[in-house]
Amino acid sequence: MPLSKLVSDIQPLDQSAMAAARKRQDMLTKPRGSLGRLEDVACQVAGITRQMPPLIGNKTVIIMAADHGVVAEGVSAYPSEVTAQMVANFLSGGAAINILTRQVGARVVVVDIGVATTLEPHPELRIRKIAPGTANMAHGPAMSREQALQSILVGVEICETEIANGADLIATGDMGIGNTTPSAAIAATLTSIAAYKYVGRGTGVDDSGLNRKVNAIERALSINQPNPLDGLDILSKVGGFEIGGLAGVILAAAAHQRPVVVDGFISTAAAMLAASLAPQACDYMIAAHRSQEQGHDLMLEWLKLSPLLDLRMRLGEGTGAALAMGLVEAACHILADMATFGEAGVSDKVQE
Amino acid sequence: MPLSKLVSDIQPLDQSAMAAARKRQDMLTKPRGSLGRLEDVACQVAGITRQMPPLIGNKTVIIMAADHGVVAEGVSAYPSEVTAQMVANFLSGGAAINILTRQVGARVVVVDIGVATTLEPHPELRIRKIAPGTANMAHGPAMSREQALQSILVGVEICETEIANGADLIATGDMGIGNTTPSAAIAATLTSIAAYKYVGRGTGVDDSGLNRKVNAIERALSINQPNPLDGLDILSKVGGFEIGGLAGVILAAAAHQRPVVVDGFISTAAAMLAASLAPQACDYMIAAHRSQEQGHDLMLEWLKLSPLLDLRMRLGEGTGAALAMGLVEAACHILADMATFGEAGVSDKVQE
Repeated sequence: MPLSKLVSDIQPLDQSAMAAARKRQDMLTKPRGSLGRLEDVACQVAGITRQMPPLIGNKTVIIMAADHGVVAEGVSAYPSEVTAQMVANFLSGGAAINILTRQVGARVVVVDIGVATTLEPHPELRIRKIAPGTANMAHGPAMSREQALQSILVGVEICETEIANGADLIATGDMGIGNTTPSAAIAATLTSIAAYKYVGRGTGVDDSGLNRKVNAIERALSINQPNPLDGLDILSKVGGFEIGGLAGVILAAAAHQRPVVVDGFISTAAAMLAASLAPQACDYMIAAHRSQEQGHDLMLEWLKLSPLLDLRMRLGEGTGAALAMGLVEAACHILADMATFGEAGVSDKVQE
Repeated sequence: MPLSKLVSDIQPLDQSAMAAARKRQDMLTKPRGSLGRLEDVACQVAGITRQMPPLIGNKTVIIMAADHGVVAEGVSAYPSEVTAQMVANFLSGGAAINILTRQVGARVVVVDIGVATTLEPHPELRIRKIAPGTANMAHGPAMSREQALQSILVGVEICETEIANGADLIATGDMGIGNTTPSAAIAATLTSIAAYKYVGRGTGVDDSGLNRKVNAIERALSINQPNPLDGLDILSKVGGFEIGGLAGVILAAAAHQRPVVVDGFISTAAAMLAASLAPQACDYMIAAHRSQEQGHDLMLEWLKLSPLLDLRMRLGEGTGAALAMGLVEAACHILADMATFGEAGVSDKVQE
């Protein structure tokens, strides 16, 4: 399926469903607007799904995992083999994302889209490996333009399968040692803000690691000269397979009129790529949380998204998105299930 | 039971349980500290409950409902009869708090501690009416000192019953048309900050309602001269029955070593009274959310609490607390159920 078809399938939100949702919000037994963001989110989901009230039953977190050649530059506090080890941890249910999805009743789909290690087959693992990790972007393009497109299409395919299986709400998650580095490079390119503004400690590098990270990104940008007006060019030169995959997940969710909860720093870089390919996809995004990773705020600002949570988290995996899914579901239940003033026999506001 | 006994039962948190919790957090398969507030909350709950890991199964929101004589001053956008109507709505399951507690698997206990209307008996309603609403504090004390003590002891009794029935996590909720007005008066007294800083639109008064509110509070403070060093004096002169009841709930939770999730503006005023009676009770509090009601920030600051959520909510009922309960439970599951680096065979951070 060509990407252009998918992009052109992304429609504006349904204004009449949103207006009907807002009207019902104001009839429910609460002061108007008193549920704040929950009210706005439910109205957005009505506009996305064309349902009033929108129903969220089936929730899926899609985790894309891949490795990064740029780790050779000493940009991460953990070795690359941790990517594969954490994928195994996801599959055996011991990672933070497993606990949090259990808590909110969501399922987890794990995709090997470019892990360096050859992974054992597992019924819960989708193997769609484009290559065993990207090339080192500090020395040249991270991947070819064909691979960049392929990574997006893998995300589209995985997301479409989940939607076909009934997913009402999609969330993005990532695993990839070193992946705050390409994410920062993508953000710097798209916003034209200096790279160091997007460089934080990731999983916990020290000061010299931080300097190596800034240096690696600056070299990658200078050697590769990614074109800020061409999302595929950015992805291929300074991106990662999981980032491309997540951009595909987001585009497919938007094309199929499903809300997509965008996790933290890496997922937001993917959302920025998705937005650069299809600006109207932004309407389908719900920003899960403000990551503690430096520069995440600037990325959300560029996307004009306001995060639901701010818990000083910086783990990735979709952990912030899983928690936010619970809020989105609650917001939709409020809209669907609360009694109106009329039904409950509650006096409405005094006319002033 | 005398209040002084309860207050003296409130112990400092268990530092060894907290240290054990912190130690385990650092062994779990995630970068240290990367789950931010979730890590801190789980450590706090370990210190509160003396359990490591702490287990949260049984969650209860206690809603105290009462009316306010000061409504005669035109301080609310809704008439007083809405208090009783909303209690009926809670009991029939149509209110926001019902939807949100269903979402997080908590139960709701509704207490008539001073509703003006005589309520029909209902299996889910605890009738502990101290009086059919307070007196108008703009003209004299809202209640007697004996009634103030009685309202606190009702909260203690209700909370102790819930704990005896197995509640691991308590949250506070309120219903009472006009109750942002006494809450603002309590906050102004305890913080010595001008009353108007705490006066917001409540359920939605217009500008002239806002002026009436400031005026009513200023008169109440000037006529009654509540003693900022005497919590019972403040409660009796410018408080409300539900606020006293919630202060009792908080004190009882602390005395029985249960974490208590404090909802928004009215619950925070109750928490301030609890703290003025027993400063060590603050360690047992978890601030649910930053209410959109003006001045809530100043109240949380005085309590040295940082809220988990900021969703521009201003409904009360315990709605913010219900959502936060889900986060507290998730935090405890993380601590209990995640795999350690050793168990999962994941390489720990590179030594730097």
